[in-house]
Amino acid sequence: MPSPVIAFLSDYGHADEFVGVCHGVIAKRAPSARVIDLTHSIPRHDVRAGALVLRGTLAYTPAQVHLAVVDPEVGALGINARRAIALRSAAGPLLVGPDTGLLMLAAEWLGGAIEAFDIGHSPERLEPVSATFHGRDIFAPVAAALADGAPLPGLGEPLAVEELCGLELSVAQPLDGALLTHVLRCDHFGNLILDASHEQLRAAGMRLGEALTVEVAGSGDGGSEIAGSAGAERGVAGEVHPARYASTFADVAPGELLLYEDAQLMVALAVNRGSAAALLAVARERELLVRRA
Amino acid sequence: MPSPVIAFLSDYGHADEFVGVCHGVIAKRAPSARVIDLTHSIPRHDVRAGALVLRGTLAYTPAQVHLAVVDPEVGALGINARRAIALRSAAGPLLVGPDTGLLMLAAEWLGGAIEAFDIGHSPERLEPVSATFHGRDIFAPVAAALADGAPLPGLGEPLAVEELCGLELSVAQPLDGALLTHVLRCDHFGNLILDASHEQLRAAGMRLGEALTVEVAGSGDGGSEIAGSAGAERGVAGEVHPARYASTFADVAPGELLLYEDAQLMVALAVNRGSAAALLAVARERELLVRRA
Amino acid sequence: MPSPVIAFLSDYGHADEFVGVCHGVIAKRAPSARVIDLTHSIPRHDVRAGALVLRGTLAYTPAQVHLAVVDPEVGALGINARRAIALRSAAGPLLVGPDTGLLMLAAEWLGGAIEAFDIGHSPERLEPVSATFHGRDIFAPVAAALADGAPLPGLGEPLAVEELCGLELSVAQPLDGALLTHVLRCDHFGNLILDASHEQLRAAGMRLGEALTVEVAGSGDGGSEIAGSAGAERGVAGEVHPARYASTFADVAPGELLLYEDAQLMVALAVNRGSAAALLAVARERELLVRRA
Repeated sequence: MPSPVIAFLSDYGHADEFVGVCHGVIAKRAPSARVIDLTHSIPRHDVRAGALVLRGTLAYTPAQVHLAVVDPEVGALGINARRAIALRSAAGPLLVGPDTGLLMLAAEWLGGAIEAFDIGHSPERLEPVSATFHGRDIFAPVAAALADGAPLPGLGEPLAVEELCGLELSVAQPLDGALLTHVLRCDHFGNLILDASHEQLRAAGMRLGEALTVEVAGSGDGGSEIAGSAGAERGVAGEVHPARYASTFADVAPGELLLYEDAQLMVALAVNRGSAAALLAVARERELLVRRA
Repeated sequence: MPSPVIAFLSDYGHADEFVGVCHGVIAKRAPSARVIDLTHSIPRHDVRAGALVLRGTLAYTPAQVHLAVVDPEVGALGINARRAIALRSAAGPLLVGPDTGLLMLAAEWLGGAIEAFDIGHSPERLEPVSATFHGRDIFAPVAAALADGAPLPGLGEPLAVEELCGLELSVAQPLDGALLTHVLRCDHFGNLILDASHEQLRAAGMRLGEALTVEVAGSGDGGSEIAGSAGAERGVAGEVHPARYASTFADVAPGELLLYEDAQLMVALAVNRGSAAALLAVARERELLVRRA
Repeated sequence: MPSPVIAFLSDYGHADEFVGVCHGVIAKRAPSARVIDLTHSIPRHDVRAGALVLRGTLAYTPAQVHLAVVDPEVGALGINARRAIALRSAAGPLLVGPDTGLLMLAAEWLGGAIEAFDIGHSPERLEPVSATFHGRDIFAPVAAALADGAPLPGLGEPLAVEELCGLELSVAQPLDGALLTHVLRCDHFGNLILDASHEQLRAAGMRLGEALTVEVAGSGDGGSEIAGSAGAERGVAGEVHPARYASTFADVAPGELLLYEDAQLMVALAVNRGSAAALLAVARERELLVRRA
């Protein structure tokens, strides 16, 4: 019988022992479980980037349990102000993490959350629970217990699924024959992942191979969420950049902008051998107006 | 039967193949062993930081063998000048690494070293032993052999436990109604881990929630150990900073200094959404005078 | 029976989820396989560095399958322009990766490639194959299938071994009583790995312990390969630096240059507590003239 698999994603980075200690905690509680580190380089506190990356990995792991930890910046209330949760998805896989919306795109991709539990006082938690390291003290032990076969209902207090904190994503909108899109996420290459779909691009009259323009529109608006730390909003509103609707980087010359479908099937802006984030001087949340040239 | 577990900590970083090669060596010698990477981001050559982090992880791993490699900077004698050792602790777990004091806080936490062996000429070592990569050639093979069940006494020459190189940690001292503490370690967030205990703070009259002051005292003194590379000692002696004795970051405003108990139960100084190391402009070894405001 | 082992090397870095997703893909296809991450910090697009590191790790892993992914920069044709291949070596281990020469030093070390297959349209590949992430869509699934016991011939179209893209390495040449060497690779410490052998040094009259000079000779010449991104060729031609032919760093004073055999048994130039790359201001491909002082 293959080992149960826990997929683990966080913003802990590799500069400290946080990830290793969580592995230790899991190995103690569930000696036969196997942990796949999806990434621990989610930009710190960037719940939305974590949610998008987590969703994008689901098709590629056999995990029975998804453990994800990205907390908002420690603010006036601290991380104790948000619930710690475990969910069962309609497709089967379990999700463990903070109730910040981080798990919700994944839950939706898996058919929706059908059971939810508040695990903040789980019998599996490690005492004393520290103020800052819930990954070690709450999330990893509960994920390990689930991988080890512990029944979900014994691990926390039941919650109504409707009470869970959601994650609102913007949606691109047609505007005067163009498409008004928003930057959902900027990856480490400076590629800008947008909220547009190919259907929307097609509906706005754009065809693969065509020349486009990308206009930096208005100022960024973080809405209810705190802007990422890299989120300098320096793009000059009204600036127009030529681009191409292409299938691969090789379809444009080095230094040129392309609109393409990335490996996670998201519509994205990139620069061949360069950085779209740097070229447009924009970051998360920024509005961009894409139209035929 | 669960796999034997080796916990692995080093200052090798992730920029090279050092960690991966050690994993390969272990998998060859002990195919059923499982390796947990605690961290490989100990500041290069910082034996004390390695010893403190290693001790702090012990409660959270099921490892039978702890493999730790942090060597002092290659100096006039090179790394061949220090012994390679393997220890059995009173609590059972085995410790493998250089005889630089790196293993000694962990050994003490585990009830003390009760057996010690010089493994520099272990029959398990890989020939030819390189001048610079003892992790691959000595430490990993011996740790793997132990995980695979090889008896410790066959792996080296017996040493008296008293001959082992110790690790001296400073201890905070009461001084004129204040507490004179030292920075043991600076983590990657700029939090300063101190040598004070809550009992000492209480004895000096400080109570949770109270306002404090932190005075930068005298100049840093690395003692017999080389100061960390990040150890610019720029703090202005006599400078006094307001702080608060708090339980969580959220108890102070952003940018403010707090004295708190960190997730490893150590007393530490931090700045909410900032860096205490930067604010005080101090690093390892520096003396700080903490008193009620 | 021990788990099959896949050794995995790439230039993916740790800033994204690429490595983790490949682990997921492997765990899905080959639940019992174990993956050893050799390194994912090969300089981006540096096929030669990848090939050298891969070869250097072979003696230290029990892997049945070596998975390596380092692609040249996306150019006019994109990564679809190169074949995806799987090879069987004379010694037994299988090699999976792009047909860019990356696998060829390893294949040679393992006695040569005796069977080769084009896996670009492998039945194991994940559809749709993305334009940019063949590690996930082609290489990892094929490596996993091989680790799971799938016969190599069923995984692709047969290729003549002679058709495989080779990797030319320069060779040091005697010149007027000196040795004209080339920098094959620069590691993360600034050590310069050369194409010279100890036999060549000896034939040119150099003996361990002797004083040498290292002259920066001519300008760098990337040949048919694109120079690494760090490849600023700033060394002043004709500049002569004193050095010593030594066995360990400790044989020279801090700041001094030494020629030594590194842990992979390659001849290399280093500076004790410093960077040879910075001291000589040279990078990959650069010619250096080494002679007795």
